[in-house]
Amino acid sequence: MTPPTVHSAAAPDTVDSGRIAAHLARFAQLTEAGEGCTRLAYTPLEREAHAVFTRHMTGLGLLVHTDPAGNTIAELPGDDDTLGAIGTGSHLDTVPHGGGFDGIAGVAAAMEIAEVVARRGVTHRRKWRFIAFAAEEGARFGQACNGSRMVAGLTGRADLDRLVDRDGRSMAEAMSAVGLHPDRIDDARWRPEDWHAFVELHIEQGEVLQSRGADIGVVDLISGSTRLRVAVHGRATHSGGTPMHLRHDALVVAAQCVTLGDRLARDEKHHGTRVTVGRLEVEPGSITTIPGAVDFSVDIRDVDTVRQRDVARRLAAEFDRIARAHGTSAQIDVLADTSPVLLSAAIAGQVRDSCAALGLSYRVLPSGASHDAQQINRIAPAALVFVPSRNGLSHAPQEFTSAAHIAGGSRVVLETMIRLDAEG
Amino acid sequence: MTPPTVHSAAAPDTVDSGRIAAHLARFAQLTEAGEGCTRLAYTPLEREAHAVFTRHMTGLGLLVHTDPAGNTIAELPGDDDTLGAIGTGSHLDTVPHGGGFDGIAGVAAAMEIAEVVARRGVTHRRKWRFIAFAAEEGARFGQACNGSRMVAGLTGRADLDRLVDRDGRSMAEAMSAVGLHPDRIDDARWRPEDWHAFVELHIEQGEVLQSRGADIGVVDLISGSTRLRVAVHGRATHSGGTPMHLRHDALVVAAQCVTLGDRLARDEKHHGTRVTVGRLEVEPGSITTIPGAVDFSVDIRDVDTVRQRDVARRLAAEFDRIARAHGTSAQIDVLADTSPVLLSAAIAGQVRDSCAALGLSYRVLPSGASHDAQQINRIAPAALVFVPSRNGLSHAPQEFTSAAHIAGGSRVVLETMIRLDAEG
Repeated sequence: MTPPTVHSAAAPDTVDSGRIAAHLARFAQLTEAGEGCTRLAYTPLEREAHAVFTRHMTGLGLLVHTDPAGNTIAELPGDDDTLGAIGTGSHLDTVPHGGGFDGIAGVAAAMEIAEVVARRGVTHRRKWRFIAFAAEEGARFGQACNGSRMVAGLTGRADLDRLVDRDGRSMAEAMSAVGLHPDRIDDARWRPEDWHAFVELHIEQGEVLQSRGADIGVVDLISGSTRLRVAVHGRATHSGGTPMHLRHDALVVAAQCVTLGDRLARDEKHHGTRVTVGRLEVEPGSITTIPGAVDFSVDIRDVDTVRQRDVARRLAAEFDRIARAHGTSAQIDVLADTSPVLLSAAIAGQVRDSCAALGLSYRVLPSGASHDAQQINRIAPAALVFVPSRNGLSHAPQEFTSAAHIAGGSRVVLETMIRLDAEG
Repeated sequence: MTPPTVHSAAAPDTVDSGRIAAHLARFAQLTEAGEGCTRLAYTPLEREAHAVFTRHMTGLGLLVHTDPAGNTIAELPGDDDTLGAIGTGSHLDTVPHGGGFDGIAGVAAAMEIAEVVARRGVTHRRKWRFIAFAAEEGARFGQACNGSRMVAGLTGRADLDRLVDRDGRSMAEAMSAVGLHPDRIDDARWRPEDWHAFVELHIEQGEVLQSRGADIGVVDLISGSTRLRVAVHGRATHSGGTPMHLRHDALVVAAQCVTLGDRLARDEKHHGTRVTVGRLEVEPGSITTIPGAVDFSVDIRDVDTVRQRDVARRLAAEFDRIARAHGTSAQIDVLADTSPVLLSAAIAGQVRDSCAALGLSYRVLPSGASHDAQQINRIAPAALVFVPSRNGLSHAPQEFTSAAHIAGGSRVVLETMIRLDAEG
């Protein structure tokens, strides 16, 4: 480990938590009605948030463009146009009734870093890019990190027809409806030779930093995620007229599947596997009718890719067995399947050094959630910087991270970018 | 058992299945969009169906009125005004995405019987009443047989504020919105001295008659039903960021409750108990968010009232234990609680004799479902006549009973009414 160097130009010290809080408040207004924040992938509200980002960056004098996939990229040219770029950013979409920090914190950090660099005239050799990725949340289409997967070439045109939301609308249709260009997403791809490094700031979405009293999390490894959609078809009939032994109750089947997934993940042999059924819908949904159909999702996460896929295979086989035992059928589709990702150790080292130089405490930890940085890591070495989540809550209206913590993380990202800029 | 007498005036032979099929087809048009038939309690569509019933009866020359509870009653005066009345009828509302026969078959039978009696001038001593009860299905407000409970004095004004639908609308509000009079439901009450007997025709909603090849079911006993509403409150947070041991997953709790209810009902010690979770809603319902809240219904039915309540108590206690074990809470409310009802053996005897006289095969059986006849049985001796359900399906779009079977049942009801009319 290299000893900490004195940090550059004192620019990170001028990062302002008040401006960050104002950005967060502005984005929080862009939501559907109801509790928390609902700004789903590829909706007019998400595009409006991107427009807020664009206006801020344009106002600072940056060159801004939105690519065919909906990612918005603002650039500050460097002194040497031949060098690979350094980027930072995150996403602006949310889950239904989520919070105002997941993703948005990293974009607000990028907005503040760009302001400090542009206004104070911080010099840099490389191009610096500030990015708001599109459609990071998998809540709508089942697959996460859509904008960053498209720039990394991991999602292609055919996938945009395959991925559909609950209303049966494809991602391609949703993109076209908000003025994006599914047929031109190949033009959005990034070239590795154009890049030097990428750093994303994100809220932790867990309790490690809070419980350890650390300011910063330096992520070494990101869990893989396999997502299943399970459709159980039984027989809807009268709850009074149908004896127990003649039932084909789709909800009894689904309940046993939910219980099994939870038990398997809690098994000590599977320490580290996380199994979640987050969405479950019952038809026809009447007190006196035996459920005829249940549709549910399963999210299987693990840092061990063999175990992740093994759990997915075992659950699918068990679900099928449970369904047959009740005279029902279970159709099981893989919605998305992402391997765990080991992030760049070199850039993580720069992040740790930056923390030390700025006097901020840090902890190295894995991430259970997927992030844009793991997709970008295929193009350029990437780092993921966590800031503490209050009580670990996320994907919920109670999600909260203080502007002071985000400002601390922004200082670390800026310091890291300055150090990366100096690399050969 | 009295020996079968020759049946009266051959009027039952003139019951016409074509007219019955036409009534059913007319009611089937009155539905919300989507699969099957959706005509919920105390909605404009239900009132429209009552208006169809009213127009038919008025056209036949009967005196028709709608009571403050929304029940529509058509009367043919008899030769002796001092004698108690005989009634027949059923209900016109449905569950969400139900069929076109549950309830409606009994009203179509009443419409056809009234037509035969009025057009052929069948003489009778007693007043004959033909009734379309309001709001029989418990799907909307949790409690079943609302119209008939009000005429029997089993549901009072205060209950109409207590019973609410999924949108939080009270039954009183729903009634007022369709022009009914919740404040005057006491005026709807029937006086026992005004009645001699009541006979309801209904589809079986089970498979006994079809499997035994019987034309008619004569019900001796109707199951009781205890209905619970369970609201589990856990903690919504990120599916990737939250380790298994820090979760408070409301759906894992609900799934264990569903599984437990099913297992308890299948236990051989509980032969006859039926436990159903028909409605279950998950919040926020996103693939990557651990469910923070689940709201579900439990319907517990049994012909043994002690066992029915014992199962409800055991389930409530176990649900509470499961919820606490996961660091969640379960709020459990009793939505409705109805004891099993033993119907009149004397009238059932008249029904059996009528079947024999008409050459129709019958089988005596209990009913798992609740019916208006069991409420009316508090006012006057009541009988329940079942006609076969194809494959036992009910509360589903596939619900079906042939017009020929309903005509057969209508002949039995008319023959029974003629015999009851002659009673002292």
